[in-house]
Amino acid sequence: MSYGPPYPYGTPPYQQTPYGAPAPGGNYPPAGGYPGAAPPGGGAPVGADPQLWQWFTAVDVDQSGAISAQELRQALLNGDWNFDLDTVKMLMTLFDVDRSGTITFDEFAGLWKYIRDWQNVFRHFDADRSGSIDGRELKNALEQFGYRLTPKILRLLEIKYGAGESRVDLKPGMTFDRFVRACVATKHVTESFQRMDEDRDGWVQMNYEQFMTVVLTAP
Amino acid sequence: MSYGPPYPYGTPPYQQTPYGAPAPGGNYPPAGGYPGAAPPGGGAPVGADPQLWQWFTAVDVDQSGAISAQELRQALLNGDWNFDLDTVKMLMTLFDVDRSGTITFDEFAGLWKYIRDWQNVFRHFDADRSGSIDGRELKNALEQFGYRLTPKILRLLEIKYGAGESRVDLKPGMTFDRFVRACVATKHVTESFQRMDEDRDGWVQMNYEQFMTVVLTAP
Repeated sequence: MSYGPPYPYGTPPYQQTPYGAPAPGGNYPPAGGYPGAAPPGGGAPVGADPQLWQWFTAVDVDQSGAISAQELRQALLNGDWNFDLDTVKMLMTLFDVDRSGTITFDEFAGLWKYIRDWQNVFRHFDADRSGSIDGRELKNALEQFGYRLTPKILRLLEIKYGAGESRVDLKPGMTFDRFVRACVATKHVTESFQRMDEDRDGWVQMNYEQFMTVVLTAP
Repeated sequence: MSYGPPYPYGTPPYQQTPYGAPAPGGNYPPAGGYPGAAPPGGGAPVGADPQLWQWFTAVDVDQSGAISAQELRQALLNGDWNFDLDTVKMLMTLFDVDRSGTITFDEFAGLWKYIRDWQNVFRHFDADRSGSIDGRELKNALEQFGYRLTPKILRLLEIKYGAGESRVDLKPGMTFDRFVRACVATKHVTESFQRMDEDRDGWVQMNYEQFMTVVLTAP
């Protein structure tokens, strides 16, 4: 499993895609402890990006080795990413695997890579280099990820995650953080549907509790 | 139909409640035109709240008689309500009935009353006067509105709409704007479910398109 950018896969109308889910352990070596490594709590772990380590320690003021969601938001801001509250919540859900409420440096490094990868995806699909994703660009991106959605659903995604503040105010398109949310939400809802569609006939049966659960866990 | 505060109604596990949907026409008299009224485009309409009219005209700089979503956000700020983007979008969806993308003064007055009514609801259920709604207060509010939800669903509402930035960071509870969103979302999803549950057995059957539509139209 990887949390890199998504790749095309599967058949319409909905399919499994491998992106969005972080590997539980992360791919990073544990901090410190190696011969020649900096003392615990001091310098950067072996192999760590010094800039990343600096941002992490700058927000981890008590040097506990872990940062809260609020501190994460600040760290993202230091990296020039102003994410809205719901996007920060989504990232915490994806990367705070043990639900401790805090993010260690290893988790943080994984999260950073995830965002960097998504940023490359964003740049790739922002065909007109406008700095935001419009309806046609969103359609292309989701098709590449293996989602062939109807015009109606694409339009609803545009309305919900667009930077515009109403149904008819769609000029600015999707900012980076809301584009990521739109893609992760599509994946989440599609996979929830697939899990329930055991006979793969495109129809599911569910009760109120199951229904509410899917809606409320979508980013 | 009214857009005042909700009242208790119905039976578990889900029911129709009358709140959240604005009356299409609004209850306000049309602006101007009466004997003695200010000239069009000039002073406040007869019967209008002067403070409200002042805020409206302050953001309606071209005096077109209608404000955009972005201007609405500014007007709300003038009224001391800092709502997040998704809440502003929800209000536009509820009050921009003709989907023109703009809000007339009549629609604005209706919207204002709606928010004021919700604020009274918020104050009523904020039993400990903390300025935010915690899990128990949310449970009480939704029960009064006729929703008897399981602890799991209540917890998911708390996580999704809470001001906390992660699953475990729930101390601050729900701010006013997110509390309104949580209640309107519960109503929206419940009513969508009810419409599909024609035989009222608590189970619905739906395809992927229907499923995505409900999720993406929830506030």
